[in-house]
Amino acid sequence: MQAIDPDFLPISGFVLPRFAGIPTFMRLPHVPLEDARIDQVDIGLVGVPWDGGTTNRAGARHGPRAVRDATTMVRQLNQATGVMPFHLARCADLGDVAINPASIDDTLKRITSFYRELTKRNITPMTIGGDHLTSLPVLRAVAEKGPVGMIHFDSHTDFYDSYFGGFKYTHGTPFRRSVEEGLLDPKRVVQIGLRGSAYDGEDVEFARSNGVRLVFIEELQERGVRPVMEEACSIVGRQPTYLSFDIDGVDPAQAPGTGTPEIGGFSTFQAQQMLRHLGEVDLVAADFVELSPPFDVGGITAWAGANIVFEILCVLAQSARRRVK
Amino acid sequence: MQAIDPDFLPISGFVLPRFAGIPTFMRLPHVPLEDARIDQVDIGLVGVPWDGGTTNRAGARHGPRAVRDATTMVRQLNQATGVMPFHLARCADLGDVAINPASIDDTLKRITSFYRELTKRNITPMTIGGDHLTSLPVLRAVAEKGPVGMIHFDSHTDFYDSYFGGFKYTHGTPFRRSVEEGLLDPKRVVQIGLRGSAYDGEDVEFARSNGVRLVFIEELQERGVRPVMEEACSIVGRQPTYLSFDIDGVDPAQAPGTGTPEIGGFSTFQAQQMLRHLGEVDLVAADFVELSPPFDVGGITAWAGANIVFEILCVLAQSARRRVK
Amino acid sequence: MQAIDPDFLPISGFVLPRFAGIPTFMRLPHVPLEDARIDQVDIGLVGVPWDGGTTNRAGARHGPRAVRDATTMVRQLNQATGVMPFHLARCADLGDVAINPASIDDTLKRITSFYRELTKRNITPMTIGGDHLTSLPVLRAVAEKGPVGMIHFDSHTDFYDSYFGGFKYTHGTPFRRSVEEGLLDPKRVVQIGLRGSAYDGEDVEFARSNGVRLVFIEELQERGVRPVMEEACSIVGRQPTYLSFDIDGVDPAQAPGTGTPEIGGFSTFQAQQMLRHLGEVDLVAADFVELSPPFDVGGITAWAGANIVFEILCVLAQSARRRVK
Amino acid sequence: MQAIDPDFLPISGFVLPRFAGIPTFMRLPHVPLEDARIDQVDIGLVGVPWDGGTTNRAGARHGPRAVRDATTMVRQLNQATGVMPFHLARCADLGDVAINPASIDDTLKRITSFYRELTKRNITPMTIGGDHLTSLPVLRAVAEKGPVGMIHFDSHTDFYDSYFGGFKYTHGTPFRRSVEEGLLDPKRVVQIGLRGSAYDGEDVEFARSNGVRLVFIEELQERGVRPVMEEACSIVGRQPTYLSFDIDGVDPAQAPGTGTPEIGGFSTFQAQQMLRHLGEVDLVAADFVELSPPFDVGGITAWAGANIVFEILCVLAQSARRRVK
Amino acid sequence: MQAIDPDFLPISGFVLPRFAGIPTFMRLPHVPLEDARIDQVDIGLVGVPWDGGTTNRAGARHGPRAVRDATTMVRQLNQATGVMPFHLARCADLGDVAINPASIDDTLKRITSFYRELTKRNITPMTIGGDHLTSLPVLRAVAEKGPVGMIHFDSHTDFYDSYFGGFKYTHGTPFRRSVEEGLLDPKRVVQIGLRGSAYDGEDVEFARSNGVRLVFIEELQERGVRPVMEEACSIVGRQPTYLSFDIDGVDPAQAPGTGTPEIGGFSTFQAQQMLRHLGEVDLVAADFVELSPPFDVGGITAWAGANIVFEILCVLAQSARRRVK
Amino acid sequence: MQAIDPDFLPISGFVLPRFAGIPTFMRLPHVPLEDARIDQVDIGLVGVPWDGGTTNRAGARHGPRAVRDATTMVRQLNQATGVMPFHLARCADLGDVAINPASIDDTLKRITSFYRELTKRNITPMTIGGDHLTSLPVLRAVAEKGPVGMIHFDSHTDFYDSYFGGFKYTHGTPFRRSVEEGLLDPKRVVQIGLRGSAYDGEDVEFARSNGVRLVFIEELQERGVRPVMEEACSIVGRQPTYLSFDIDGVDPAQAPGTGTPEIGGFSTFQAQQMLRHLGEVDLVAADFVELSPPFDVGGITAWAGANIVFEILCVLAQSARRRVK
Repeated sequence: MQAIDPDFLPISGFVLPRFAGIPTFMRLPHVPLEDARIDQVDIGLVGVPWDGGTTNRAGARHGPRAVRDATTMVRQLNQATGVMPFHLARCADLGDVAINPASIDDTLKRITSFYRELTKRNITPMTIGGDHLTSLPVLRAVAEKGPVGMIHFDSHTDFYDSYFGGFKYTHGTPFRRSVEEGLLDPKRVVQIGLRGSAYDGEDVEFARSNGVRLVFIEELQERGVRPVMEEACSIVGRQPTYLSFDIDGVDPAQAPGTGTPEIGGFSTFQAQQMLRHLGEVDLVAADFVELSPPFDVGGITAWAGANIVFEILCVLAQSARRRVK
Repeated sequence: MQAIDPDFLPISGFVLPRFAGIPTFMRLPHVPLEDARIDQVDIGLVGVPWDGGTTNRAGARHGPRAVRDATTMVRQLNQATGVMPFHLARCADLGDVAINPASIDDTLKRITSFYRELTKRNITPMTIGGDHLTSLPVLRAVAEKGPVGMIHFDSHTDFYDSYFGGFKYTHGTPFRRSVEEGLLDPKRVVQIGLRGSAYDGEDVEFARSNGVRLVFIEELQERGVRPVMEEACSIVGRQPTYLSFDIDGVDPAQAPGTGTPEIGGFSTFQAQQMLRHLGEVDLVAADFVELSPPFDVGGITAWAGANIVFEILCVLAQSARRRVK
Repeated sequence: MQAIDPDFLPISGFVLPRFAGIPTFMRLPHVPLEDARIDQVDIGLVGVPWDGGTTNRAGARHGPRAVRDATTMVRQLNQATGVMPFHLARCADLGDVAINPASIDDTLKRITSFYRELTKRNITPMTIGGDHLTSLPVLRAVAEKGPVGMIHFDSHTDFYDSYFGGFKYTHGTPFRRSVEEGLLDPKRVVQIGLRGSAYDGEDVEFARSNGVRLVFIEELQERGVRPVMEEACSIVGRQPTYLSFDIDGVDPAQAPGTGTPEIGGFSTFQAQQMLRHLGEVDLVAADFVELSPPFDVGGITAWAGANIVFEILCVLAQSARRRVK
Repeated sequence: MQAIDPDFLPISGFVLPRFAGIPTFMRLPHVPLEDARIDQVDIGLVGVPWDGGTTNRAGARHGPRAVRDATTMVRQLNQATGVMPFHLARCADLGDVAINPASIDDTLKRITSFYRELTKRNITPMTIGGDHLTSLPVLRAVAEKGPVGMIHFDSHTDFYDSYFGGFKYTHGTPFRRSVEEGLLDPKRVVQIGLRGSAYDGEDVEFARSNGVRLVFIEELQERGVRPVMEEACSIVGRQPTYLSFDIDGVDPAQAPGTGTPEIGGFSTFQAQQMLRHLGEVDLVAADFVELSPPFDVGGITAWAGANIVFEILCVLAQSARRRVK
Repeated sequence: MQAIDPDFLPISGFVLPRFAGIPTFMRLPHVPLEDARIDQVDIGLVGVPWDGGTTNRAGARHGPRAVRDATTMVRQLNQATGVMPFHLARCADLGDVAINPASIDDTLKRITSFYRELTKRNITPMTIGGDHLTSLPVLRAVAEKGPVGMIHFDSHTDFYDSYFGGFKYTHGTPFRRSVEEGLLDPKRVVQIGLRGSAYDGEDVEFARSNGVRLVFIEELQERGVRPVMEEACSIVGRQPTYLSFDIDGVDPAQAPGTGTPEIGGFSTFQAQQMLRHLGEVDLVAADFVELSPPFDVGGITAWAGANIVFEILCVLAQSARRRVK
Repeated sequence: MQAIDPDFLPISGFVLPRFAGIPTFMRLPHVPLEDARIDQVDIGLVGVPWDGGTTNRAGARHGPRAVRDATTMVRQLNQATGVMPFHLARCADLGDVAINPASIDDTLKRITSFYRELTKRNITPMTIGGDHLTSLPVLRAVAEKGPVGMIHFDSHTDFYDSYFGGFKYTHGTPFRRSVEEGLLDPKRVVQIGLRGSAYDGEDVEFARSNGVRLVFIEELQERGVRPVMEEACSIVGRQPTYLSFDIDGVDPAQAPGTGTPEIGGFSTFQAQQMLRHLGEVDLVAADFVELSPPFDVGGITAWAGANIVFEILCVLAQSARRRVK
């Protein structure tokens, strides 16, 4: 990996105003899989415009485009950590997976197949969803060689078994499936920000009995970000770890644009603080999911998401950089 | 059928202000299938909160609730035609079909099964969707005994064969399937309001070669409402006929809340005029589809929809009344 | 009356951009009743920020401010008729009547009392409401010396007798009261644009039996603007006439910001055409009512209202001018 | 009282998707006063769609419907406290009080009369307003036998004497009237979250001189939720207590949909924490008021309100349960 | 020119859903000036994200991105005319001109310089603005060899001389400058849709005295589309002609997202009809301007704009095709 | 200075409801420069409706009007500090500076010239912008006699040198220019709330090397409001100090209506707390900038701004009062 490759830097807002130009993720070059430059890419930002697993209010299919639009307002330097991700790793917008809105099964296969092309090329994937079912087909590619750990920000566990009389593939079940399929090591899974009224305790019971560490919002607010994140880092350790960020973990006042909001969430400031703790974790892939632009107001959720994706990129780039050295 | 049954009249806005109360369709009584009063119902308003067939922007799953909310502002007398539908037929809100957002196949079955309960009881169904794929499972129940004719208001033919590499069940294909399954007699089908850019001419070709009468918007505007509707009525004749109203037939300025708008549409005034021509048609069922509240602005599409449903009810009640006499 | 008084001209958009400055009606000078300049005023624009009579969705209390804001985008010359109203009559913003949101009775008195100050000074009032009940206390001042005729644009007759068990003062009853109190001569009243579902026919029956001329929307669209307006002008003749414009007469796509919209209305273009026919009518006062900004989208109703008020001002200024000469 | 009565459980989102179905409060059965099942009801959720007392921006008349809509997304288990309110008490949606938008006096009577029907049947009322004047006629029924204490969340004291020259019944005066009428024992009243610019100090002076405990937002933020709530609980003690929650107590970023917002409020998380402290208080009735949907953005205030109503229900059900045992 | 070049076709919605993928204009390939494929391009779609000339409400700087987003919903075949523009000419998205928001002068130069690169390569430019001042620097490149005619849809003439005390470059003056600079032949200029209140008649006077043909909205509505367009075509004749479409020509109900709306405009249906008359005109360039997304509601103006750009492309492709043959 | 001048008190909401009347800042009298009462004014509230310096999303030109509208909901007494600003100083709305949207240079001159009229009369200016470039021409008048200190709330330093290839006057450069021109003493400048991704560190480097005290958001949240503000007050000391409040310092959930939001900001409650610490600072002028109403949602940013302006007025009035005594 050679850093500060001028061909993989975002266009500066000093050159082209930030509202101008075709909106790719972070104003990075668009490098589809069939492009010759694909082999130079270290981190691939991939859109998965899909909400086939949504049981409540949909719209996450519009997530990738809204994030692309908002990320053109993000700049290059993380002032809080000093990280410049595009100087650490060659990042590119790989476009969207061609999902199939008319079939869940077909789409699950299309996504896994796309991500296998990435793992084959050692490209670290940064997914912009899409609803939370997206994590499952991504993990099927990313965890092909063995279960990974996970740091998971969310208000829901997504550990339910089934909906509507036995249907197994929804955005409330991806991690149940992932544990069952051996993609996640539940003892290396931490979930942060849980809250809200619940159907029953079945998901929590499954998670706990399998060793998942659940951090409800009350605990997070009482103990504070630092101790919680130190514990989270020690649970996932230095083995390969997946990062999943569901925007509904953030409080609905700061992130209204999502299908299943829960009041009383953590703030975007806390989200930033928590993500900045992950610089030493061995992140092999990450996703940002459940942004539903039709329910957004004034684009504030998309803008929050764009910045969260930037924070994730910062830690992902540190991981990618370490793997190369 | 005994008219002016006080148990089946909407609550008056002179008694309870129109913004008050639990919103059922038209402020009618809620009579679920298992309610004893179900056998007295002549016309059942049924919600199908489903957008599993949507290939573009979704949200029609929220249609029934938005229409319920808006219909509480509708009153009882059609000033233009003098019809008072609730005096002609006992109408009730039968609730929503329990669709399954996680499976197209399962939902198709659930809908047909629900509507078979209605045909069994001689209840004329007025469906509030839902996306346009909804019409297919409804027709499977309604046209069980033989193909029906159809008057169809829309900007699209919905006669495409398949999407995304062979997938047959989407909101662009219901009438292709209906013709194939013998539910619709294409020679007795009229489509009004067609327009917009197109993928290719495959749908139009299929429709024309099967004898469907296509009225593009240019023809409607040039000839005017009356001659077009007279022709439409003569095409469907006096045999059983289905009415399908896709809100995207209306111009997007008056009906922005839909997933696939097409500019240059007919106006709500023209919609009213057209529907009022159907008093003599033998309508056996009707649907109103493709209202997508997340894309609505200020509720104007829901309000337009509520009034269109009222106009449809007026002609449906005339039909139902005739069948009883 | 001396025309083109520089002290009574709007601030030009060439001097101060139209989005700048304190928003008075039409960027006219603010001349409260206690201001010395009040005696120079020919036409007084008065806000009545009140929705105490609203039985459905409220918000008309915010109407005057929204119209003030929007009118700063209106310029001085009516290109269609060549009229420059501010060259014909000295116009001023007289501020708002200090209504009482906690009492209908008290507010009715406060409004009439304010308008008596205007009639005393021979100021022609242009009211910006407020809901339609506003017309009643205004008429009590304006028609003090005898009944006037009325040209009334609306989708409702507002001729109902009472609501909620005998309550007589709502926005659905002002003209019933006005006829009863001898403020309106029903034989010189024309209502244009009527439509929508109705509670019953009681209002229409009252109106017709008293000689009011009702022009439903179907008649307007079939006959066209010119013959309808010629008839309207001949009905009110050359005697003193009141003009009342309810924004819900306009189609909801062009005027969503109102409490009781009815689909299938006339267009803003038709509104302009109709108003321009009134240059010869002896208008003694006018109102613009039922704009409800909380239900507006993107300010389009306020903007439509601002232009309609400008059209009304053009004909009002012609009347005022004639009275002086 | 027999718990877990299957006839009084909400419809599960696993059976009928949460966006489906006719929206009653919490998806509970609709049991109007005249329904035979009314005598089985322990807690009655009642809508009061009224904003007749509003002196500023109105719209609270639309509150009950917006809360009904949003509560269909609430589930059954309070994960933070473990309480399942519908297992503790039979809850039902009793519909809306038929208020009269054209008369404050008449409406005050209608509301008290409705609530007397509830107290007669030992139904604990959970009111969903409506503006804050609603609390007065409710207290007239609930405190018929003697003054109650009150825990009151709000940014305003609502202890003003009169408005607009002596008018006594507005949403700024209900608790002045309640103290005067002997419905509230001011020494057992605690107000939490007070802030904002003020007309003068007259309301605060009245409250203080009568022994009301005022907790301004600065004190709440400095001392924290726990000590403040412990003090509040000890002030109201174990005697009958009313709970009044004005949504404008919450910060406007989380609850913009209200008529008189004040910046710098407490968060929804703090609201949840505060309410969860009330499990031991003897709550005899509660209200949730001042939600104004026309000023909401993206439904976030309605959603916050739905969850706050759920939290209140949890403590109310505990109280109701205790009274029965 | 070789038609149906597969490298220059939009991505089909049957392959990649229309909400997916990076939004280029019409889903065409992105071909910046420095790309080798630039020499194959026949028609270049260029964004000019600039509103430096706006004297009223701004936001047109966001126009190109909003149109890119909306055009991904446009398909390939014009059903009304049978034209498939991408089969007639190789079209590409050339990206945005790097305008300078901090300098009008600098930006004027940057735009002209960009367009000279196009004329040098015989690329027909289709501009997506940007405010109407954009037309001036484009014409400076396009009309370098001599004055062109113009068909101009708008509610304003944009023939004013100066603003704010002598400032010559605003969106109200481009065509005054163009005539002065010899870029436009005023005798071959037709303006259609003019209306609204005016500052004074100075612009109209200039236009008329130079031979411009002004078609006010009243004339358009009275005579109808066909005769007006036939006259327009005959005025511009077969010489090189520029097409300028200001979205504020369309009625604000259908196009609210613009800075200076005027009520009573032509409809999108009429816009389509008018544009379809231009198949025989020798169009050398076209622009679509004044879309201001911050003032749009529900994206309906962007969607109208996307379709209007498609209609323009259809006639532009016919022109481009003819020039090659 | 004579306090409690009844001619300079806001109109009470007990007399005229707060939604009524022509909206001046704080419902104060409108006193233009040419008004005789100008010499009695102590504090002049001035609108600068300008966004000519905006490099990103514009709209701040609409700021003053939105603040005027919202301030009519503010009352007279600051409950937290007991200050009644209108009793301490005669405040008036001086109207808007007649800026020129077509020229940055001309506008810079017009603003400075307007403010020189104020300093000449010893009127303390409270500016309501406008984008942040506004501060420069104001400082040119206010700091004419020598550099002032500054307390600056913002998420950006606005210390950049130039944009777009050397352009020196944008909203990202005003304080670089102010230091260069000797208007600000950088050693007496404190910036609070800094955060967000950055182009590079050039601005921070300039600020630090000149002795500016930068308080990033992380420091503010870790240390808390009190110590930070005590330090800030000690840095500016008792010499003349300017106060600049950029609304984008506040978190975007509470202030979405701004052009360049940055997530993770301070809250409105913290803003209030910080401003209340400034009672002893010698404030000679203040501005509130970067409110962009087109990007606001539900008016919450305008409302936050109105309250922040009120807090600033409270400390400004204390300063003005001290100077007089």
